[in-house]
This record gives sequence, structure tokens and C-alpha cells, in this order.
Amino acid sequence: MTNDEFRTYGHALIDWIADYHAGIAARPVRATTEPGAIKGQLPTEPPSDAEPFSAVMRDLDAVLQPGLTHWQHPRFFGYFPSNDAPASILGDMLAAGLGQLGLNWQSSPALTELEEVSCEWVRQMVGLSPAWSGVIQDTASTATLLALLCARERATNFSLGRGGLQAEPKPLTVYVSSQSHSSVEKAALLAGFGRDNLRVVPVDESFAMRPDALESLVREDVAAGKVPCAVVATTGTTASTALDPVKAVCAVASRYNLWVHVDAAMAGSAMILPECRWMWDGVEGADSLVLNPHKWLGAVFDCSLYYVRDPQHLIRVMSTSPSYLRTAADGKAPNYRDWGIALGRRFRALKLWCLIRGEGVSGLQTRLRRDMGYARRFADEVAQTPNWKVVAPAPLQTVCVRHEPPGLEGDTLDAHTRAWCERVNASGLAYLTPAVLGGRWMVRVSIAGLTTQWDDVATTWGAMRRAAEAAI
Amino acid sequence: MTNDEFRTYGHALIDWIADYHAGIAARPVRATTEPGAIKGQLPTEPPSDAEPFSAVMRDLDAVLQPGLTHWQHPRFFGYFPSNDAPASILGDMLAAGLGQLGLNWQSSPALTELEEVSCEWVRQMVGLSPAWSGVIQDTASTATLLALLCARERATNFSLGRGGLQAEPKPLTVYVSSQSHSSVEKAALLAGFGRDNLRVVPVDESFAMRPDALESLVREDVAAGKVPCAVVATTGTTASTALDPVKAVCAVASRYNLWVHVDAAMAGSAMILPECRWMWDGVEGADSLVLNPHKWLGAVFDCSLYYVRDPQHLIRVMSTSPSYLRTAADGKAPNYRDWGIALGRRFRALKLWCLIRGEGVSGLQTRLRRDMGYARRFADEVAQTPNWKVVAPAPLQTVCVRHEPPGLEGDTLDAHTRAWCERVNASGLAYLTPAVLGGRWMVRVSIAGLTTQWDDVATTWGAMRRAAEAAI
Repeated sequence: MTNDEFRTYGHALIDWIADYHAGIAARPVRATTEPGAIKGQLPTEPPSDAEPFSAVMRDLDAVLQPGLTHWQHPRFFGYFPSNDAPASILGDMLAAGLGQLGLNWQSSPALTELEEVSCEWVRQMVGLSPAWSGVIQDTASTATLLALLCARERATNFSLGRGGLQAEPKPLTVYVSSQSHSSVEKAALLAGFGRDNLRVVPVDESFAMRPDALESLVREDVAAGKVPCAVVATTGTTASTALDPVKAVCAVASRYNLWVHVDAAMAGSAMILPECRWMWDGVEGADSLVLNPHKWLGAVFDCSLYYVRDPQHLIRVMSTSPSYLRTAADGKAPNYRDWGIALGRRFRALKLWCLIRGEGVSGLQTRLRRDMGYARRFADEVAQTPNWKVVAPAPLQTVCVRHEPPGLEGDTLDAHTRAWCERVNASGLAYLTPAVLGGRWMVRVSIAGLTTQWDDVATTWGAMRRAAEAAI
Repeated sequence: MTNDEFRTYGHALIDWIADYHAGIAARPVRATTEPGAIKGQLPTEPPSDAEPFSAVMRDLDAVLQPGLTHWQHPRFFGYFPSNDAPASILGDMLAAGLGQLGLNWQSSPALTELEEVSCEWVRQMVGLSPAWSGVIQDTASTATLLALLCARERATNFSLGRGGLQAEPKPLTVYVSSQSHSSVEKAALLAGFGRDNLRVVPVDESFAMRPDALESLVREDVAAGKVPCAVVATTGTTASTALDPVKAVCAVASRYNLWVHVDAAMAGSAMILPECRWMWDGVEGADSLVLNPHKWLGAVFDCSLYYVRDPQHLIRVMSTSPSYLRTAADGKAPNYRDWGIALGRRFRALKLWCLIRGEGVSGLQTRLRRDMGYARRFADEVAQTPNWKVVAPAPLQTVCVRHEPPGLEGDTLDAHTRAWCERVNASGLAYLTPAVLGGRWMVRVSIAGLTTQWDDVATTWGAMRRAAEAAI
């Protein structure tokens, strides 16, 4: 493809994307294809000769489109918002067009310095003190793995430079809650701690970690000759946006020298609202923190911010300095390759920078407040409707609901819950994701699409009632 | 930003990118800014109110542009090619515009199935047998970490489900060569093996791993009560594109039950040329393999292919199945979240698919053969020039050279080498990266820019001669 063809097709693609967003509300939210159906329509062998991009765009419409679950749809209420703000799309396109690679500062000074600026902007926006240093990762899964690796190496005084984890005489333990995200357990297992050394702290009736239970578990482990290493507190759990008491967790942690990692992947965006910051009160006592602008805030995926209070520790765990990467600027500017796993780094700051400039802090705040308002109004309506229940506190934009008609309980109630949710999803009108909370299935309604309006919530609520109540 | 504004600025951005590529050859290759200079020109606080995208584009030209090292420049001969083929840029833009997220198959069937198709296409293109299954990662650093985690868990029969690495009685050892990429050592340390258990196998005069030396080290470790776990063989090392003898390494590995990971991050692209496949002869005996289409092949960063022969093992090490991610399609289609670290996954297959369709296999082959032809011609010219030396075999597109004027040796020669390389880079005419090989600095000339022509190589060679010979 020549540069002139790129220009021609690029313009066509911009129009395609703008048309896609303009017409997205009319599409069924969830993909309508069966497993294998898309693959079955595509050639099994690569083309020997070049094809025009028009052929790709034809397949995009004819083959791929039915296989898209529209995360940008105004009635996408599943999982979490993965908002793709228009200004951020432009920033990500620019990153692709520039083709920069941040191996070290010299390989793209603009990439490194705009990342410093963008991480610093968000730090101020969420009200963290200047004691934090930030870096962009791909996802919170990676950021949490980094946190547990840093914790492991702090507790072992850098075992990686000696005999590794096997040479440590006492088992290291990690503390999570029953509501922690699956990536936390995964990170602990990948970091080599082992499932036997993972302690699941019980939660209270609001699904928040109980600091007294944490302390008991830590004491038992110390008494049994183990070395408590790290605790992960969540601000806004995945199932119900529950809020672990960060301050009390940090207090326990400081008594036993535990690394504290705060998983605010989802709810971190809400900290741009001063009235929400009580939710992570005590965060300044943590060691590391993850916050995903690629969720609610509106940055194009992937853009996950990892903040630490001791960047030198992170660098000592992660750094390498082979001859082929050394430059005269080393020491004068950050080499972000030493702040994470990957060596090569995409120019991700552009999409975050474009988002913040394109919306302004006040614009972002207005949108988040709108979403929380919708969630409160929706939760009120559910709570006032016979046989419907809001099953967990809804401090943010996710409302956990269950239809509990008389006579249904236990597994029968679970089957009913999953069935009506599937009916809503299969209709194409909206998309909701069910989850288990307190041992029972419920349905999460995660409200925060860029283009979601109250009518979208109301229409979906009507569809939920029809789908659930008709079945009885 | 409204959708209409997105359309307007999107068109402007396409033209900006096309103009950038059209005019790139006239720019100095390396960034011209000092550390901190860009940051110093940007506001330290985020804007309260929205700014028009035109303000971003103004800063792009006025502030960021001097801080770009132009990886897409025809005289960028540093590190490795990180080619940004126009068709692939379009595919990546489409991924941003669609805003899909592959948490599981249902969350974007098209994302999952196009990834299956694209990995399968590349498998055929590089001549691997159907026994391999592929998945897209961000970088080879991540892929290599996965490989060593899989190796660790195979050797310990899934210690992660029990007491973790600490509960294993015998130390596990990992084998690399002195020429392995820095990410290999980093992965071994992050995986918890410890530096004491990392064995560096000596290389021969072509900088390739010596399988006899590997076997000696493995035997010594077995005799000392250790458990040899994994060996990483490289097809195309970073410093000099040396070729470890994969077949012989696999033969040793099979005798001692070692996991074999092949790092073909850079040279894997060349395997689309049948005449190059001798370079990784024996690869079918390996357990895992990484190959980066975001290097020479032309896919926009990041796009790293990780192939394994036993996907069930990978899934067992990586999988999580919390309630909120379960769907009715589980088991009927791959959930690629269980094939890597990240849960959320960008629609990366689009840029690879668009690249292969936009260029065709024959188009890609033609370009790679052109690059190898330039490298051979350049190596011949260097070899025939008095006082210049090609210091390592150049089987691919990287030529390692040194100017060795009479009377210079040791540290004085090193200083001369780094000085003339810096003079070339500071001139802005071309960009080369120096590295240490066999204990001495040399300069790598990595030839494979999308728009590089012989004149670019010749002009750079002239500049190298002037920079080096004038100094004597």
C-alpha cells in the first residue's frame, strides 16, 4: 500500500468509524454469531498477492460486523465501561501513525516525557500526593503482577539476585479478599507464591474486606513461621464495586510490614470527583496503586496507570541494561522499560493526553457525575419495585440486582436469574453480565457508556422486568 | 468531542500522518531535544476545560515533533526495524475505533476468531507444522516470561496450585546464552528462579550457543542435585543476529526433559522465506516460540506472536474462571485471556490481518529479500574497505561493523567506535546503535526500513566513513 493509498483509505476509514458510532445504537448490543461462524467465512490460507483495502472493508461489514459485541453501545451495561472517547481514538491513531517505540528515552523522548506529564496530570486529577510516580501499563493484570513481584522482592531483600524464591527459608504469604479480582490470584500464582500461601480474607455485609480478619490471619501466619508479604485492597470490586477500608488495611499492614497494593482499576476514575475520595481514604499509606483510564474515564484500551511511592525499588526489580540499550541520556530521564515487563513500549500517553485535553477535567467530571446520578436513580427504581432487590451497596455506577419472586430460592433462583439475563442479552436490546455475590447469582448493571442517556437505562429496565416477570 | 468533530479532525489527522510519512526523509533521524525539554514546554496541570483538537495538533508540531526519533525514517538503522506498514496502521486505527475488548469469546467473537485466523496464517507463512497454536501478546518480553512460567510449572507439576516455588525441594535451573536478549534474564528473575540458577552457556566464534557446553552445564547441575528446567535458544540474537543451533539444543533438551523456548522475535519474520528456514532447523522440537510481526514484517507495534505445542498446559498455568467472566460459549471457542497475563485484550489481530492482506505473502517476501540483498551488498563493501571489518556473520539484515585503524585497540578502540557512531547519530542523517560483542563495542547497522532504498544505505555508509576516518 502506498502512502497515497493510505491517505485515500484512511479518509474512508475515518468516515466508516464515525458512521459506526453514529449508527451503533440501532445494532443489537451482543454479537449474534455462533462460535466458529466468523472463522468459517474467512480464507484458511493467507493471500499470496496484495488485496486492496476495500476488500478488507467489505469483509469488515459482511463478515466481522455480526461478531462484534458493541462495547461502545449506549445500552452496553456489562462488565465495566471501556469507553473510547473520540479524542482518545485520535490520540491512539496518532500513536499508530507515528510508529514510535520507547525502548529508552533516546528512542523517543516525546513518548517518555508525555508519559511523565500525563501520569502527573492524572495524579493531580485524582488527588494523590506528589509522593507517587506513575507509568502506563497495558492492563491492571500486569500492574498487579508488578506489585506482587515488588512485594516479593522487598520481603526477600531481592532474592531474584541470589537463589530466587526457592532459597527463601520461610514461606511468603499474600492476602486478598473473597471479592478481589481474578487477576490478583493469578498474579500471586504467577509470581510463585503458590495457592497454599494465598489467604482469602472474609468480607463484611457490604462485601468489603474485614481488617480485623486480615490481622487475625496475619498473626496466625507469623505464629506458624511464615512471612506475611503483601495485601491487595480493592477500591471498587468487580462484582459489586465494594470498597475495602484502605486506611484500616494500611494500618494492619504497617504493623506487620506488608506491601499494600490498591486495586482501583475501575473506581480510580471516580477519584477525579472530590466527593468520591472518601472511598479510598488512607491510600497515601499504600505502596502501589493501579487505576485504568481505559475503563470509565474514556481512554482507548489499553491504558492502565501504575503508581508507586518508591520508583527506585520498582526499577531495581525490573531493570536490565544490556549494551545495545545504553545511551548518553541514561540517568537524565526515565527509561520506562525499567518500570514494567515489556521492553518495547507503544506511545500510549497520546491517547490519555488527547482525552484529558479534549474533554477537560470539568467535562470528565460532569460525565462521571451524570453516570452516578443515573445509577442512583436506577437503584431507587429497582428498590421500589415489588420482588426486585438491590443486593449490594452501589456507591458508584454499578447496580447489582436480583428478581426474587415468591417461592424461588437457592439453585432455582439462580437458574431464573441467569435465564432472564440471557433473554435480555439475546434480544440485542441491552447487554448485562451476571456474577456470583454472596454465593448467589445476581445481575450487574454497569452504567457509564459515553453516549448512554437515561432513556437507555429506562428502556433496559423495562426489558429486564419483562424478561424476568413474564417467566414466572 | 462530538462524533462530527471526530470526523473533521480524523480527516485532518489522516492527512497529517500521510504528510508525516511523505516528508519523513527530510527530518533528522534522531530526536534533537535534551532530556526534560519537552516536558518543560507542556502545562504541569491538566486543563479544566475542553480544548479543541487543533490545539493538540499545534503542540504536536511545535512541541512533540523535535522529540521524535523517527523509527519509520528510511535511514533509521538502529535497534531493529519496527515497521509500520500503511495497511497495518489502518488495521490498528480500526481497532481503536471499534473499541472491542476480548475478555472472553462472547465479549467479541470477531476479535477472538480473527486472532485464530491470523495466527494460523502466519504459522503457514513461516512453515511451522499444524502442531503449533498461536496467540498475540504485546511483546516478546511477555511471551518469554510466559514460556519460563510454563516451564517452571511443568518441571514442578504445577507448584502454583500448592506451595509455590518455595516448596520445591530442588533448585530449578534455566539455560541461556551470553547473547540472549536482556528480556530472557529478566523473565527468569521475575519468574522467581533467581540469578544463581541462571546458567550462561558459552557461544562459538559465530556467537551461537554451544550445545556441547549446554550439555556439560546440565550434567553438572544434575550431579549437584538441581533440576534443569528450561533452555532459551535464539534465532537471530539482538547484537548480531547469531543463530543458535536449535536442533542440537532440542536434542540435549529432550535427553534432560528441558522446556525449549525459541526466541525468534526478530528473525522469525524471515522464516516467510523458505530459503531462510535452515536458520531455525529443528524448531519443531521446541515447546514454545516467539515471533514479532511488529518488527521486520511490518505490523504496527504491539503485536508479538507466541506459539505453543501444548495449549492446554498454557491454559492450565494462566487460566482463571471467576463467575463474572463465564458465558455459555465457554469450551466452544478459545478464551484467549487464559493464554497470557492480561485479562482485557485489544483487537490486535486487525493490524496483522490488514498487513497480510494489504501486502500479500509475495509482497512481504519481496521486501524482505530486498532488505537482505542490501545487507549483503553493504557487508561486502565494508569488508573490502581498508581498516573496516564486518565483525560477525550477517545472515539476515543486520551488519555489525567496526572501524579498526592501525594503532587503536582495547578501550581506545571502544572510545573511537562509540564516538564516530555518536557523530553519525548527532548529524541527523542516520541512526545506528552500538553494542558490545565479544567484549568490544561495535556498531550495528540494521537495514530493513519499509522505505529504505540502496541510496539510503550508501549515503549512510559514506557518513560512517567520514565520521570514523576523519577522527584519526
